[in-house]
Amino acid sequence: MKGELFILSSPAGVGKTTVAEGVVKEVPKLKRVITCTTRKPRKGERDGVDYYFLSKEEFEERIKKGKFLEYAVVHGNYYGTPLEEIERELEKGYDLLLVIDVQGMRQILKSRKEAITIFLLPPSLEELKKRMEKRGDPPEEIKKRLETAKKEIPAWREYDFVVVNDVLMEAKEDVKRIILAQRLKSYRFDPQRIKDPALRELMGL
Amino acid sequence: MKGELFILSSPAGVGKTTVAEGVVKEVPKLKRVITCTTRKPRKGERDGVDYYFLSKEEFEERIKKGKFLEYAVVHGNYYGTPLEEIERELEKGYDLLLVIDVQGMRQILKSRKEAITIFLLPPSLEELKKRMEKRGDPPEEIKKRLETAKKEIPAWREYDFVVVNDVLMEAKEDVKRIILAQRLKSYRFDPQRIKDPALRELMGL
Repeated sequence: MKGELFILSSPAGVGKTTVAEGVVKEVPKLKRVITCTTRKPRKGERDGVDYYFLSKEEFEERIKKGKFLEYAVVHGNYYGTPLEEIERELEKGYDLLLVIDVQGMRQILKSRKEAITIFLLPPSLEELKKRMEKRGDPPEEIKKRLETAKKEIPAWREYDFVVVNDVLMEAKEDVKRIILAQRLKSYRFDPQRIKDPALRELMGL
Repeated sequence: MKGELFILSSPAGVGKTTVAEGVVKEVPKLKRVITCTTRKPRKGERDGVDYYFLSKEEFEERIKKGKFLEYAVVHGNYYGTPLEEIERELEKGYDLLLVIDVQGMRQILKSRKEAITIFLLPPSLEELKKRMEKRGDPPEEIKKRLETAKKEIPAWREYDFVVVNDVLMEAKEDVKRIILAQRLKSYRFDPQRIKDPALRELMGL
């Protein structure tokens, strides 16, 4: 049974990385897609965990080789989603959680309409600003990211699901619920769940 | 915000009533639709809780008055879904859980394509038989219900979601998940959740 691709977007600072990591830790057979970027790692960010941190030259080499499902330039840095990794993991039956911005979501939906999209909202703009300050973003970055947030938030209606990240634990439970409920879709029914041959036959498995 | 109609079907004896009652108890703003029947109450069944138990005459009077969303005859008894009650509760913003058989689901989907459908499966036919014996169904009823089950189970693919009622607690959690995840759909977003006027404006609320 092939896995499904879940896309999680939110303005910078809402806490999508924390939510995504919590969800991936608690949901079996779910992996996070590690994307590539040429921006510098922030404090505490690890290569291969938060992102694959690439040089501009490495990134452009991969663009040429068609290695990205999508890529974009944001605030002067490249961001890209590795194609082969996604295909391989979905084929193995893993669900994938891809954290990506609104532009990235739109790009991906062009070739993968079946992706399930989730938008994470801050409870308020004030709280969003506070969270960025708290994690030590420089003031000029905060200003730039708030401007981007204002452009991205109106896109919430384009997403299948909306989760408000007011209380972290609740937002995480909501995203888990979306992913776990999706696994109960009849088209995704795992024939392995039924052992009784008579019932299997009735079900046409 | 209008509520949504969830339809839960399963062959007799799988435990749909127990699952449905557990779910309704634990999910806020969710009510069970009490359906009408002319069959005799089983041990422990209460009028207005499990069903509205009606006489044949009362039932036929309501048919004439157009009071049912759908109705059918099963094993010689009438079963019907009251229309006005559903409309009223959905308008009030309640989600509704309607426990109904495959035929009933098909009837309702003709006029309400937006209903969300869940099929509850037994883990095996043997276990299904055991559960009916355990609750004291008479042997000839068991035989009849198993025959019906064999006709109904192949319909599982017509449903949006499939839950296996192997362990009661898990089946209940699965149904809860489906209902709660549905509330996170962006088209159902409750504007009340955002208090910040600036964010509300950005969101177009």
